[in-house]
Amino acid sequence: MLELDNKYLEELHTLIEEGKGSVLSKKLSSLHPTDIAKILNQLKRDDVHYTYRLLSDENKSDVLVDLNDEVREDLLGTLTSKEIAEDVIEGLESDDAADVVQDLSEEKLEEVLSLVKDEEAKSDVMDLLTYEEGTAGALMAKELVSVEENLTVTRAIRKIREQADNIDQLYTVYVVDSKARLTGRLSLKNLLLNAPSTRTPISELKNSDDLVSIKDTDSEDMVVSIMEKYDIVALPVVDAEGILVGRITIDDAVDVIIEEAEKDYQLASGISEDVESNDSVIALTRARLPWLLIGLGGGIGGAYVIGAFDIVSNPMLALFIPLIAAMGGNVGVQSSAIVVQGLASSSLNTSNILGQLSKELSVGLLNGIICSTIIFLTTYVLGFGASLSITVGISLLCVIVFAALFGTFVPLALEKRKIDPALATGPFITTANDIIGLIIYFSISSLVSSFF
Amino acid sequence: MLELDNKYLEELHTLIEEGKGSVLSKKLSSLHPTDIAKILNQLKRDDVHYTYRLLSDENKSDVLVDLNDEVREDLLGTLTSKEIAEDVIEGLESDDAADVVQDLSEEKLEEVLSLVKDEEAKSDVMDLLTYEEGTAGALMAKELVSVEENLTVTRAIRKIREQADNIDQLYTVYVVDSKARLTGRLSLKNLLLNAPSTRTPISELKNSDDLVSIKDTDSEDMVVSIMEKYDIVALPVVDAEGILVGRITIDDAVDVIIEEAEKDYQLASGISEDVESNDSVIALTRARLPWLLIGLGGGIGGAYVIGAFDIVSNPMLALFIPLIAAMGGNVGVQSSAIVVQGLASSSLNTSNILGQLSKELSVGLLNGIICSTIIFLTTYVLGFGASLSITVGISLLCVIVFAALFGTFVPLALEKRKIDPALATGPFITTANDIIGLIIYFSISSLVSSFF
Repeated sequence: MLELDNKYLEELHTLIEEGKGSVLSKKLSSLHPTDIAKILNQLKRDDVHYTYRLLSDENKSDVLVDLNDEVREDLLGTLTSKEIAEDVIEGLESDDAADVVQDLSEEKLEEVLSLVKDEEAKSDVMDLLTYEEGTAGALMAKELVSVEENLTVTRAIRKIREQADNIDQLYTVYVVDSKARLTGRLSLKNLLLNAPSTRTPISELKNSDDLVSIKDTDSEDMVVSIMEKYDIVALPVVDAEGILVGRITIDDAVDVIIEEAEKDYQLASGISEDVESNDSVIALTRARLPWLLIGLGGGIGGAYVIGAFDIVSNPMLALFIPLIAAMGGNVGVQSSAIVVQGLASSSLNTSNILGQLSKELSVGLLNGIICSTIIFLTTYVLGFGASLSITVGISLLCVIVFAALFGTFVPLALEKRKIDPALATGPFITTANDIIGLIIYFSISSLVSSFF
Repeated sequence: MLELDNKYLEELHTLIEEGKGSVLSKKLSSLHPTDIAKILNQLKRDDVHYTYRLLSDENKSDVLVDLNDEVREDLLGTLTSKEIAEDVIEGLESDDAADVVQDLSEEKLEEVLSLVKDEEAKSDVMDLLTYEEGTAGALMAKELVSVEENLTVTRAIRKIREQADNIDQLYTVYVVDSKARLTGRLSLKNLLLNAPSTRTPISELKNSDDLVSIKDTDSEDMVVSIMEKYDIVALPVVDAEGILVGRITIDDAVDVIIEEAEKDYQLASGISEDVESNDSVIALTRARLPWLLIGLGGGIGGAYVIGAFDIVSNPMLALFIPLIAAMGGNVGVQSSAIVVQGLASSSLNTSNILGQLSKELSVGLLNGIICSTIIFLTTYVLGFGASLSITVGISLLCVIVFAALFGTFVPLALEKRKIDPALATGPFITTANDIIGLIIYFSISSLVSSFF
C-alpha cells in the first residue's frame, strides 16, 4: 500500500485537471480508500464527481464512508438510485451503509431499497435505520457469526464457515439458544484446541462467565464506557427479549470517543457546530458567530458596569481592567475544564459538589494569594500608587477565588440537571467572569478609596 | 459482574472503616478491577494499603494498572520486592507490567527483577524498558502468537496451542520466516476453513497482501493513525531488521487517543500538567499557576498600553476595553482550535498556510462585519455618541480580523517548526490578542478623534 506524500498528491491533481482518466484510475487503485477520500475532500465539486467514477467498485464503497458529510451528500445527489443500491447497500457492511443512506430523502431511499437485489443486506439496513441516533442499535452492525448451543462442534464449524464469508474480521462466535437469545461466546481459540472431530455440543464449549452485552436502546456513551472498561473488541447487542440483534466493533467505539473529545474541545473553544478546517467559509462563520454574539452582549454589559461607576473621576482604574477581566476568565476556564474532564472520565461525580468546591476554594486561594502578592508588589514598585496597588491586589484575589468556585459549580450543576457540562466551558464562563470581575474590581475600588 | 452504584459504594466505605476484612474481601471479588481501582483512587492512604491486601492475586495485578499514578506510586512503595515481582511482572501482560515498574528506582527494579521466577516474563519486561517513551516499542506487548512459514498446518496448530495459553485475546497469528522476520498473517478463520489434517505449508495459507506493520522506533502518533486508518485491532511491531518483536492492541491505541485529546483540551484551557480533579491541591495549583503568571504579565502589559494613550482626557474609552479584549480573545481561540483539530485529524497540513490564512480572512471579515455593525448601531442608539460608536465599530472589525489571522498562523507556524501546535491555544493566544487588541483600539480612537 502506497503512502501519500505531497509530490504524489500534486501529480494526481495535475492528472485530474488534464482529465487523464486511465492513468489516474491506475494511480488511485494503489491508494488506500481513506487516502482517496482525503484527496476528494479537497477537490472542487466537478472534480469529485469525475474522480469518483474512476474508482474500482470496492473503493467506491469504502471511499464514500470516509468522505466529509458535505462532500458525500453532494456526491450522493449525483448518483443514480441503482448506483447507491450497489455501491452502498450491497457494497458496505450494514452499519456503514445505514450511516451513508440515512441522509437521503424518504422517496429516494425507498427507490434505492427497491433496487437492492441482496435481500439480507436490504433488511439489515432497513432494520438499522429504525434505531434512534446515539443508541447502541444505531451504532451496531448486523453482520455477525452465531451458532446454536445444541449443535455439535462439527456442525457448528460448518455453520461458522457459511457465515464467516460476509465478515471482514471474525472477532467472536456468539452462542444462542433455540429462541436466538444470547447465552455465551465461543472463542475460535477454544474451538481450535478442541479438534473439530468431537461430537460435544457447543453448550459445553461456550464461555458464559464473563459475557458482556448491551441493550439496543442503551446509549453510545454506555457502549464506549463498557468497551473501554472491559477492553473488548466486539460487543454483542441484544433487544428487550435478550435476542442477539447485532454487534459493535471497537473501531466504531473509537469513532464515538474521538467525536466526543472533539465536541468538548470545540465547546471549550467557542465553536458551536461540528466544523472542520476544510468546511466552507459560510459553515465556519455560522459555527462561530453565536458565541461571538454572546461575547458582544457581555462586552456591552461590561460597558454598563464601568459606566455605572465613576470612571471619569478616577480614569487610572481603566489601566487594570484587562488584567482583572483576563484573570477571571483564565481561572474560570481552568476550573470548568478540570470538572468537565473529571465528569467525562467518571473520576468525578455530582454526589459531592460541596467537597469539590471546598477543594477548589483552596486551589483558588493559593493561586490568588500568589498572584495578588506579585501584582501588588509590581504595581507599587512601578509607582502606580498605594491606593491603586491595594485595589488591584485585593480585587485580583477576590476575582480568582470567585472565578474558581463559579467555574467549578456551573458544570457540576449542569451535569446534575442532565445538561452537557461542556456547555459551561469557553465563552460562557469567560463572559460571566468578565462582568462579575469588573463589579468586584470597582466595588473594591470604592471601598479602598473611602479609606484613603 | 456487578455494576457499581452509590449505595454499594457507601456500604464498602463503611466496611473499610470498620475493618471488616472478610466481608469486604468477598464484596470486592464480585467487582471488576477497573471499578475497584476507582474506589481505591478515592480512599485515604492507609485505607488503600489495607484494602489492596484483601484482593485476590489476579485482581491485585489488574487493579494496579488502573490506579491513578499518584496512588499507585504510593502503594508500590509499601509493597515488598517479592510482591511486585509476583503481582506485577508475573501477573500482568508485559506492556502493563513495564508501565507499572518503570517509575521504580533503579535499585528497587533490579531487586524486583532478581526475584522474578518466570524467565520469559522477566526478559520481556527488561526488553520493553529499553524503549523510549512515546515510541511504538514502549507501547507494545511481547506476548504474541507466531508460526514459521515452512510448518505444515498440523504442526502450526500444535505450535499455536502452545503459545495461545499466555494470551488474553488471540487476535491474529503472525507468520515469520526462518530468521524470525515478519512475512504475513494467518487468520484463524482461514485455518479453520482449511481443515487441520492437510499437509500444506503455512506459507501457502498466509496472507501478506495487506500486511501492515510498524517499526519499534516509530512514534505513538504513527501507531494511532495507522490503526485508525486501516481499522486493525492488533498491529505487529518489527525492529530495524524486520524481525517481529511485539504487537500493539487497539485498547492501547485507544488510551493514546484519549491521552492526546485530554492533553490538547488541557492546553486549550490553560492547564500545563496532566492533572485530574482528584489530584492534590498542590498538584492542581502547580499545574495552573504558570498560565496565570503569563496572564498576569499580559495584564501588566495591557496597563502600559492603556497608560501610553491618553485615557485621562478620554475616560469614556475605558467602557469598551472589556469588549475589545474579550472579542479578540474569543476569535483567536476559535481560530487556533480549528487549526489544532485539523492538524490532529490530518485534514489540514502546513503545505498551504497562505490558503488557510486567506480562508480565515474571509471568515474573520464576515464575522467582523456582522459584529461591528451590531455594536455600532447598539452603541449609537444607546447614546454613546458618534465618535465613540465609530471607534468601537471599526476597532472591533480590525481586532476580529487580526485575531482570526493570528490565531490561525501561530499554530501552523509551530507545527511547521515541529512544536506541539496545541501550545498556541488557550492563554497564549488570548493574552497576545488582548494586548494587540488594545493597541488597535486606542490607535483607531486617536485616528477617529482627529476627524471629529
